[in-house]
Amino acid sequence: MMPSIGVCYYPEHWAEETWPRDARRMVDTGITHVRIGEFAWSRIEPRPGVFDWDWLDRAIDVLASAGLKIVLGTPSATPPRWMLDRFPDMLAVDAAGAPRKFGSRRHYCHAHDGYRDAAADMCRVLGERYGRDARIAAWQIDNEYGCHDTVLSYSDAARHAFRDWLARKYQSPEALNRAWGNVFWSMEYADWTDVDLPNLTVTQPNPAHELDYRRFVSDMVAQWNARQVAALRPLTDAPLLHNYMGRVLEFDHFDVGADLDIASWDSYPIGFLSDRLEAAPAHKARFMRQGDPDFQAFHHDLYRAVGKGRWWVMEQQPGPVNWAPSNPAPAPGMVRLWAIEAVAHGAEVVSYFRWRQAPFAQEQLHAGLMYPDDTPAPGLTEAKRAADDLAALPAQLTPSARVALIFDYQSDWAWKTLPQGAGFDYFDLAFSAYRALRRAGMSIDILPLETARDYGGYDLIVAPGLMTLNAAEMQALTASGATLLMGPRSNLQTPDFQIPNPPGPAIPGLDLQIMQVESYPQGYAPHVRDDRHIGIWQEHGRGTAEVALRRRDGIPILYRAGKIHYLAAWPDDALWGDIVQDLTGAPSLLPPGLRIRDTESHRFVINYDLDPVDWDGHTVPGCDALILPRS
Amino acid sequence: MMPSIGVCYYPEHWAEETWPRDARRMVDTGITHVRIGEFAWSRIEPRPGVFDWDWLDRAIDVLASAGLKIVLGTPSATPPRWMLDRFPDMLAVDAAGAPRKFGSRRHYCHAHDGYRDAAADMCRVLGERYGRDARIAAWQIDNEYGCHDTVLSYSDAARHAFRDWLARKYQSPEALNRAWGNVFWSMEYADWTDVDLPNLTVTQPNPAHELDYRRFVSDMVAQWNARQVAALRPLTDAPLLHNYMGRVLEFDHFDVGADLDIASWDSYPIGFLSDRLEAAPAHKARFMRQGDPDFQAFHHDLYRAVGKGRWWVMEQQPGPVNWAPSNPAPAPGMVRLWAIEAVAHGAEVVSYFRWRQAPFAQEQLHAGLMYPDDTPAPGLTEAKRAADDLAALPAQLTPSARVALIFDYQSDWAWKTLPQGAGFDYFDLAFSAYRALRRAGMSIDILPLETARDYGGYDLIVAPGLMTLNAAEMQALTASGATLLMGPRSNLQTPDFQIPNPPGPAIPGLDLQIMQVESYPQGYAPHVRDDRHIGIWQEHGRGTAEVALRRRDGIPILYRAGKIHYLAAWPDDALWGDIVQDLTGAPSLLPPGLRIRDTESHRFVINYDLDPVDWDGHTVPGCDALILPRS
Amino acid sequence: MMPSIGVCYYPEHWAEETWPRDARRMVDTGITHVRIGEFAWSRIEPRPGVFDWDWLDRAIDVLASAGLKIVLGTPSATPPRWMLDRFPDMLAVDAAGAPRKFGSRRHYCHAHDGYRDAAADMCRVLGERYGRDARIAAWQIDNEYGCHDTVLSYSDAARHAFRDWLARKYQSPEALNRAWGNVFWSMEYADWTDVDLPNLTVTQPNPAHELDYRRFVSDMVAQWNARQVAALRPLTDAPLLHNYMGRVLEFDHFDVGADLDIASWDSYPIGFLSDRLEAAPAHKARFMRQGDPDFQAFHHDLYRAVGKGRWWVMEQQPGPVNWAPSNPAPAPGMVRLWAIEAVAHGAEVVSYFRWRQAPFAQEQLHAGLMYPDDTPAPGLTEAKRAADDLAALPAQLTPSARVALIFDYQSDWAWKTLPQGAGFDYFDLAFSAYRALRRAGMSIDILPLETARDYGGYDLIVAPGLMTLNAAEMQALTASGATLLMGPRSNLQTPDFQIPNPPGPAIPGLDLQIMQVESYPQGYAPHVRDDRHIGIWQEHGRGTAEVALRRRDGIPILYRAGKIHYLAAWPDDALWGDIVQDLTGAPSLLPPGLRIRDTESHRFVINYDLDPVDWDGHTVPGCDALILPRS
Ligand SMILES: [Zn+2]
Ligand SMILES: [Zn+2]
Ligand SMILES: [Zn+2]
Repeated sequence: MMPSIGVCYYPEHWAEETWPRDARRMVDTGITHVRIGEFAWSRIEPRPGVFDWDWLDRAIDVLASAGLKIVLGTPSATPPRWMLDRFPDMLAVDAAGAPRKFGSRRHYCHAHDGYRDAAADMCRVLGERYGRDARIAAWQIDNEYGCHDTVLSYSDAARHAFRDWLARKYQSPEALNRAWGNVFWSMEYADWTDVDLPNLTVTQPNPAHELDYRRFVSDMVAQWNARQVAALRPLTDAPLLHNYMGRVLEFDHFDVGADLDIASWDSYPIGFLSDRLEAAPAHKARFMRQGDPDFQAFHHDLYRAVGKGRWWVMEQQPGPVNWAPSNPAPAPGMVRLWAIEAVAHGAEVVSYFRWRQAPFAQEQLHAGLMYPDDTPAPGLTEAKRAADDLAALPAQLTPSARVALIFDYQSDWAWKTLPQGAGFDYFDLAFSAYRALRRAGMSIDILPLETARDYGGYDLIVAPGLMTLNAAEMQALTASGATLLMGPRSNLQTPDFQIPNPPGPAIPGLDLQIMQVESYPQGYAPHVRDDRHIGIWQEHGRGTAEVALRRRDGIPILYRAGKIHYLAAWPDDALWGDIVQDLTGAPSLLPPGLRIRDTESHRFVINYDLDPVDWDGHTVPGCDALILPRS
Repeated sequence: MMPSIGVCYYPEHWAEETWPRDARRMVDTGITHVRIGEFAWSRIEPRPGVFDWDWLDRAIDVLASAGLKIVLGTPSATPPRWMLDRFPDMLAVDAAGAPRKFGSRRHYCHAHDGYRDAAADMCRVLGERYGRDARIAAWQIDNEYGCHDTVLSYSDAARHAFRDWLARKYQSPEALNRAWGNVFWSMEYADWTDVDLPNLTVTQPNPAHELDYRRFVSDMVAQWNARQVAALRPLTDAPLLHNYMGRVLEFDHFDVGADLDIASWDSYPIGFLSDRLEAAPAHKARFMRQGDPDFQAFHHDLYRAVGKGRWWVMEQQPGPVNWAPSNPAPAPGMVRLWAIEAVAHGAEVVSYFRWRQAPFAQEQLHAGLMYPDDTPAPGLTEAKRAADDLAALPAQLTPSARVALIFDYQSDWAWKTLPQGAGFDYFDLAFSAYRALRRAGMSIDILPLETARDYGGYDLIVAPGLMTLNAAEMQALTASGATLLMGPRSNLQTPDFQIPNPPGPAIPGLDLQIMQVESYPQGYAPHVRDDRHIGIWQEHGRGTAEVALRRRDGIPILYRAGKIHYLAAWPDDALWGDIVQDLTGAPSLLPPGLRIRDTESHRFVINYDLDPVDWDGHTVPGCDALILPRS
Repeated sequence: MMPSIGVCYYPEHWAEETWPRDARRMVDTGITHVRIGEFAWSRIEPRPGVFDWDWLDRAIDVLASAGLKIVLGTPSATPPRWMLDRFPDMLAVDAAGAPRKFGSRRHYCHAHDGYRDAAADMCRVLGERYGRDARIAAWQIDNEYGCHDTVLSYSDAARHAFRDWLARKYQSPEALNRAWGNVFWSMEYADWTDVDLPNLTVTQPNPAHELDYRRFVSDMVAQWNARQVAALRPLTDAPLLHNYMGRVLEFDHFDVGADLDIASWDSYPIGFLSDRLEAAPAHKARFMRQGDPDFQAFHHDLYRAVGKGRWWVMEQQPGPVNWAPSNPAPAPGMVRLWAIEAVAHGAEVVSYFRWRQAPFAQEQLHAGLMYPDDTPAPGLTEAKRAADDLAALPAQLTPSARVALIFDYQSDWAWKTLPQGAGFDYFDLAFSAYRALRRAGMSIDILPLETARDYGGYDLIVAPGLMTLNAAEMQALTASGATLLMGPRSNLQTPDFQIPNPPGPAIPGLDLQIMQVESYPQGYAPHVRDDRHIGIWQEHGRGTAEVALRRRDGIPILYRAGKIHYLAAWPDDALWGDIVQDLTGAPSLLPPGLRIRDTESHRFVINYDLDPVDWDGHTVPGCDALILPRS
């Protein structure tokens, strides 16, 4: 499939007479796909059971007539006000016990049966009307699951559903008590109705309770999505997708993705740098107008896996956003470069959000490709350049990687549940490994942890922090033949969230048992060698495994047996660089803002810095990319 | 009117036999006014409908007999405990949904009809008893509206009143939906009862919703005040006033002031420096015992406008207070100097809070002019010196200014509703402009933004950050003939809180449209010239307006057309200094702690520093003022 | 009594066949005492009224047969889930109004009569079964009162009990109104049912209200404890004790201790350094793996007083804990050294928590002496060394001190209620005095403030910050004949929490009245002499008392009359050192990590530093102690 440019459009926001001109200009810009409808429930069904299809029919007609392919959203992220009259208890409840009210979006609990049915009904009527319409190129289910912290809910609906979920999992309260270790502190339950959600407890709840709750809410999201898929699937042949949001970890994207045909995500590089990236101030200042050089790539690689190879950017930042602590404008070139980079990672469509900046409501200061007065914003020119560039690309760009990074949502929940130290975060660990690999010039596949997965074909697999692996997962990783790096905190807990006996990591061929873990305060950074330190975390092992690296004080931090490595501490970026160079044989690290992404046929050299960088005989302009054929 | 000294006194706190001695000593100190009664509801009406006038009659008698003029407060800030039995739902509710309980003061929601009636009834009985009593020199309505964050309430009473307020404003839900842009995210309402208060929403509520709520709560305060005025006004000829609190912005003081005869405010320079001023630590350390050199003056000028020329300091800090994060004692001389400064700005009365430090309850560590053991505290001597100084002043001191600063509460709410960047605050902007003008030696009138206002007669009008202006307001400002500085963020939103089309600021004669705004992180400070930077905010314009000033990287930050200027960024203090020197022609800036305030006949040179400062051939002692006749 | 080593053990957590081996290994380690049962309610009474004694009988049998003395806990800290069905309102309520739910421990309000009775019933049945069993060496009542912030509760049960408590104290609402000064802000009550708990008020509640509430909740803890004591006492001759937690100040430990025979506390030096000690980062880094050099000693001395001479460490940190912001492992030697130090302060038993690390539930990452896989953890060897060292000690070690520090919980509540400045904390003040005395080489007795106490026999009594003293308490202190240091903030409030008239401190023989207090911002540190400063707090006095020390600017900070001193400011550590050297005649201060503790026969020289320290001709190894006979 030829990679192409899309845009998000809200016909219901604009006078109907502007639609044809908008459509024509989109096409002139080189745009091929247009997403509509995902927030329009109150216009599709203004009153319960009363549908207004006319405007939507005409909008689809205008857009498709201009040559655009339609991506139609199901509007379940924005139930109308009247839905609350039907289901007053449909709202999610926050951890302090307060219902999260109507007046923005995503005001529902995924566990609420009534609203779940209503959302599926909406899918059914949409599918009945447009399911066989060839102008619909794809369907988006709901919008940005988990955005605004909407996965964890402590509602009555969630409480009842959690009890049912536990009953199915454990079959008897006695089994649950054993699995959770509820004998501790007399927390034993006699009946399913004894079990509550793990908020507002006097001190931390049982981590097994917390982790099962997190598994439960993730399942609720997956079931919620599956319910809409089940309603739509029989009515359409068009692919189904969802648009995930950056660094949302509260549900398992692979579970949701399993029911869909394509993954997509909403990429706001500058907003994310400001609001959801831990980094040194100097780093944030350097990339203030470009975004972090690895954050987008990480998610591109992640969603390629979630989409089983098929993925899009559904919303691409087109200028300043409105929702981060600071909202600077992109440096010239970045709005185009982000699209090029996504395509280098295999994106089929890069869709800008949004066509024209809305002059009202929550996002009125969120840029579009067009200004509110219908004149072109800076993003439009860049989108056009991106479209032209994509047209000049070879039709087939197959991402190619020799390195795999395993990313596991369950591990994130496990770490959040039992952090054992302030600032100890799974995503940060995985991302620091990813960044180090990228600094060494690697192209990376991100993969889930799966029992039946064949991890063969990689030179190196990096799998940090997988808190729990079953035997088949461990086997899949260790038998792949690749160099393997696991640890820290890998396979140190059972699936029931207990410490295994014998202790983990229990890696075949590596005689090592982690007996004790330490967390360190921020600022305590034992030396490994000059300007290489570890921090935050140190494990202490027992066993005969070879020690490949020690702290200056002698404490081992890296164990090895053949190609299998176990990291027993948290390296700083410089030490990560050394480790990754050792594992990959990379002769040097790339400049701070330069990254490489390979496809089977081409090498993309991407410069996130403002200034040109010399590399390997080439000069890469600032905020630009070189696309080199691979020899 | 001869400026004079007052004091706040609580006869109900003290044994009756001490009253005559207290009154005599007040008179000996040079005090002419005494405020009483504003917290005494439980003594005036100990049980519902049972009044005890005896003590109050006698207190008024004792004080007035000694020659003191009485300011009598209505006690609505402290409803007795039994009022809650009548109106269990009268309490305000915080943003998290919790009622704010009895046990301190201001425990009521301004929107509660029942308590509003009860408070008006209390005014009526007070007025009936004392309204024609010549010993009552003025009436204070309630006490410190908004103190302790008491304007925004999310009670049932507020919810119902808000729906009525919206129905009156918009007439139909459809009109409201259009005005707010509720088609966005399907937030459309079918009925007034659909509308809730904008707290606890999943993500930010519609800014139009939030801004209308803020307008509504401001109106509730004004209506609350007006209800008491309506009850009292027919019963008395004495002037009515209210005592506002420093940097309280949640209601429109001009609206409240329109119904009153005099404005007053409660000036706690050291408490405010500690708890409600953003400033560098070195600045705070330098003025720790004096207060900020501009904070009091700003409010003096503001309340002169709110009082339509007539204003008092109702509570003047007399020593250490009890409520700020740190509570140091005033430097010797300041308790007097603050009074002198107020008079230089036109105050009619400066009233110290309080006569004798109470040895019990919440404010027992708040200093008075007298210690709890009835011996003189350091403030007493200074109050006496201030009284003596005032007696030596010419009777008529008419403040005189060539510069006007426009201050607009609606703009503050608009900025808070849609900040588009952490730390972006309207008051900070207005105050930084005020400080810069004062550093240039200017005397300033602060004025509201008003349709029918004649702004003529000023050399310079500074009007930063007025988010929305109607055509008449814009006309009034631009047609004044003065040099005018507007921006940043001026007239960029419609009254319905949408982006206008064509874009603002739409200043007659200045061809400039702001197309895009950026917020920057703290610490990012683009250079303009050596040691001059902008920060936080940058607007990008379109149009033919002359660029008067650019950043070093070429981006315009000041536009000009004749005498009209538009500032498109947020200057730091040094750059503000340059801009203000350009606009005023001031040859230099005053020393950091020195300020000038002119009246028609005199120039007050006020030194907030501890050490003497040489200025224009004079030496101004530390914590003191020179009063020079104007040539 | 020969000091000895104990351990905490949870037979209900382990398969019964492991019990004999565990018991044998405990004995081999030199352990003599084993605590069991304190969290086992759900196993003792699995269903209401249905008791299962078999397992507990057998556990006691196995342990006692091996030669271990049993400490049996009452399980009231962990009511089973079914207890909530009996008493749905038994949960404590947090300050925001949310019930604190089941799912961890300590989920009860001390004021709830029903659960109080249920807990006493459990004591009765335990006492009936084991009260005369000679194998039970002691009983522990409940567990860690106040842990997880569980003293202050805003439940309905607390509200009703508070009204009763006030009615008993004041007899009439009028008396309460007078005592609290409720005329201020019309806060007067007509009836007991008018009074609410002091949470969620609009601004701060009346401090007298808050302080009475704090006294009330402390009484609730004492009554709660006394109720269990009353149930158990007739049924057993074994001593009763409670295990207090470090730096828990919300209830008066002396009140609870009065009903018990022995005090004990739970000593987690590294956890406490991380989570409840204010100290400079460099200090925290230096002692990261050892704990603060004075924090344990302070509590040892405190609980020796609470236990009226008899005290234990009931839980001693054995390795990394799981609950602090960072959880590093102890430096080698510390697990032993902490036990030695406790014994130097007079501990009868030092009991490690816990025998084997639990592989499940909340504390699964809390180390034990054994790893979860039943192999020895590093703590086991150190515990054995400690046991061997203790066996070599002379049987009788009587702590001996020439200096007394008065510690008063009421003062802590008074300071918290009326801080008059951010960061102004009573514990910090007392602890800074204690540290200074220890740096000067002193051994210290910590004592309560008591009317009938004979403080004779000390060379020096340090009594900082006692907010209120009655005449007999003042007499006891000043008539002791010792050098006495009082202040700052001593006797400045009446028992009703008003400012006395005449003003305090009213120390016999010292003509000084504190007229005004100032709090300073962090970072403001007036010089006293080179590198000696005061900060945060300054009092201003009146009177003829000799000034012993002044700030460089002349303001007095230390007053004196003969042997009586009053400190009028908050000294930094260096100034504290000077003051203490003056008062004690100590020629120098000890090195930062070295401390001395004397018994009648021996001097313990304890080195908290990692490196050896030379002292008085001896070399003290790092993390070790010398035990020298006293000449
Ligand atoms: Zn280093
Ligand atoms: Zn500079
Ligand atoms: Zn110094």
